[in-house]
Amino acid sequence: MNQLTAWTPATIGMKVDEVDTPALLIDLDAFERNLARLMRAVPPGVRVRAHAKTHKSASIAQQQIAAGAVGVCVQKVGEAEALLQAGVADILISNEIVGATKCARLAALAKAYPHAQLGICVDAALQVTQLGQAVAALATSIDVLVEINAGGNRCGVNTADEALALARAIKATPGLRFAGLQAYHGSAQHLRLSEARETAIAHAVTQACAARDLLALHGFTCRTIGGAGSGTFALEAASGVYNELQPGSYIFMDADYARNQTTHADGFEHSLFILASVMSRCNAHAVVDVGHKAHSADSGMPLIAGRPDLRYHRPSDEHGVIVGDDSVALPALGEKLHLIPGHCDPTVNLYDWYVGVRGGLKNGVVEVLWPIDGRGATY
Amino acid sequence: MNQLTAWTPATIGMKVDEVDTPALLIDLDAFERNLARLMRAVPPGVRVRAHAKTHKSASIAQQQIAAGAVGVCVQKVGEAEALLQAGVADILISNEIVGATKCARLAALAKAYPHAQLGICVDAALQVTQLGQAVAALATSIDVLVEINAGGNRCGVNTADEALALARAIKATPGLRFAGLQAYHGSAQHLRLSEARETAIAHAVTQACAARDLLALHGFTCRTIGGAGSGTFALEAASGVYNELQPGSYIFMDADYARNQTTHADGFEHSLFILASVMSRCNAHAVVDVGHKAHSADSGMPLIAGRPDLRYHRPSDEHGVIVGDDSVALPALGEKLHLIPGHCDPTVNLYDWYVGVRGGLKNGVVEVLWPIDGRGATY
Repeated sequence: MNQLTAWTPATIGMKVDEVDTPALLIDLDAFERNLARLMRAVPPGVRVRAHAKTHKSASIAQQQIAAGAVGVCVQKVGEAEALLQAGVADILISNEIVGATKCARLAALAKAYPHAQLGICVDAALQVTQLGQAVAALATSIDVLVEINAGGNRCGVNTADEALALARAIKATPGLRFAGLQAYHGSAQHLRLSEARETAIAHAVTQACAARDLLALHGFTCRTIGGAGSGTFALEAASGVYNELQPGSYIFMDADYARNQTTHADGFEHSLFILASVMSRCNAHAVVDVGHKAHSADSGMPLIAGRPDLRYHRPSDEHGVIVGDDSVALPALGEKLHLIPGHCDPTVNLYDWYVGVRGGLKNGVVEVLWPIDGRGATY
Repeated sequence: MNQLTAWTPATIGMKVDEVDTPALLIDLDAFERNLARLMRAVPPGVRVRAHAKTHKSASIAQQQIAAGAVGVCVQKVGEAEALLQAGVADILISNEIVGATKCARLAALAKAYPHAQLGICVDAALQVTQLGQAVAALATSIDVLVEINAGGNRCGVNTADEALALARAIKATPGLRFAGLQAYHGSAQHLRLSEARETAIAHAVTQACAARDLLALHGFTCRTIGGAGSGTFALEAASGVYNELQPGSYIFMDADYARNQTTHADGFEHSLFILASVMSRCNAHAVVDVGHKAHSADSGMPLIAGRPDLRYHRPSDEHGVIVGDDSVALPALGEKLHLIPGHCDPTVNLYDWYVGVRGGLKNGVVEVLWPIDGRGATY
């Protein structure tokens, strides 16, 4: 239908400054250090189930699993489809779905990949009923976790009693296996002060603990109590309640996460960059070829790696304006800049390919091209 | 590599409420009225070259051409590749490009489609040189327009003298044909007051007129003086200077454009909607399955069609929170809503398919599926 899957922004062995723009670069050295850093930071007995909504790539999921993760999370059935098809075999959809069509797609996946571990979350009885009908229709089965509201006030039941009622409904439904609790506190991840994150996660732990204990009282064992993101995972890991962590952004570290106050020196590095070209220099600024369609502005503007004296602003669909102080030498027409995304996850979703670079952003060489298998899989 | 091109959110003949979510719906009746409305609003002697950056679809481009447009604009070489390949034969890249790789891709397109009309803009001598080298290497040719800064202060030369110098450089370069002026005033489109838009476009007309007159004095005829968007095109059309209009958003009308004060009763209608499902109802709100990855928030949050009593807020990657006043009945779990995008262009870029619905959003039937050929073609 179109040439997009055929087109690639680079070829292997190319120098980084020959890559066509805009392109999504991974600094492989920094990326691999981030992979190892996370695993070092997680105590024994606590599992890592890395969140693949950040990268949407089977190539990266396999590296996370090779580094020690038990599997990955995704947010959507479409992401699970893309990653299962590309060989990832242990996937939790850390989210609810609703409707016969969506449930049938999930059941079809469970049927098509009988040796894969596949799970989903619920927070309402209707979801249990619809999932049950879908798996029964295909004579297959699936793990189901109950999502509790851990303090983020988005999805999830609010009381231990409601969690128990859903666990009972799951247990009573052929083809559904009760697998534990999902207790992710999303809004805690980007609280700037470490004290604020500690308070938020203390609340999440209390909620998870209450649900776990009531479930245990009624004979339900939570194989998994999962949650945590890159901003808080050390807190959940130390809680004694959570046994599965779901960080995603740690592999790339976007500009927004970097604004968090951290207390540990062993911080994650920026490893994801948008390669941009200066395409116009007529006015008292430089214009780059990266706008809203190549960068998600939902968490603020990108930073410019190695050039703290420059500022990206006034994005339009395909343009961004680069300014500096009066004394700054603006980049020349044709010069390339490396933008640090404000928010990695929705930015990655705009691209079809990662360009993996070895040897640094300035003089490195393209070592790999990884497809973004789940790009656009919002369904 | 993945199933995305195989997956579709709907099948033809399906009822609209059976469409999987999130999905991008076109109300075909409203869309066709918008197509006709624009052509009625343009005076004789002024051409329409509709901007395809809004829709990125050859199917829609062909309908615009059938309605009377001479061709389309795009912003990127990748968009031109996708649309030429899908049969659109008159394309202006209303933007600058830089670098040998990009220029070579454009020259290859001109070579591959010798019967197509293909144009590009420049605002610097280096771009003329690089384009000249690329077309010479393939013994092909291309139209070149000089972009002037019409008041938007993004790209474009600032003086008539600079425009003349570039026209001379184009004329002196084998394979490049001087074709006129690009004089688009982007930031004028969304000025809320009609008086402010009139003042801005009066300035753009003065700039275009000055460049045209100096060029004429030196023997350069501008076959095209182009610009204008959905917010201002009536002003450029009436100027006596512009002879080609480039509106894009008029076909869909996003929530941001709808905030413009208009003086003509013959307004455009919303015809593009995101179909969303309520996926969680645990808290004092509804949560829909449309977040940053299914809606671009750069120009504000989506509105909810037919439900002015509801408000979408707090988007995260795959969730949006729906609230209303205390007395409002929130939509039930599984209920579907029709969101009006804040900004159509970057929202369209998140999807692979349009689902065209006939007979209204509530009870209509899926009549067509159109691929978004240029999705992701930011390069």
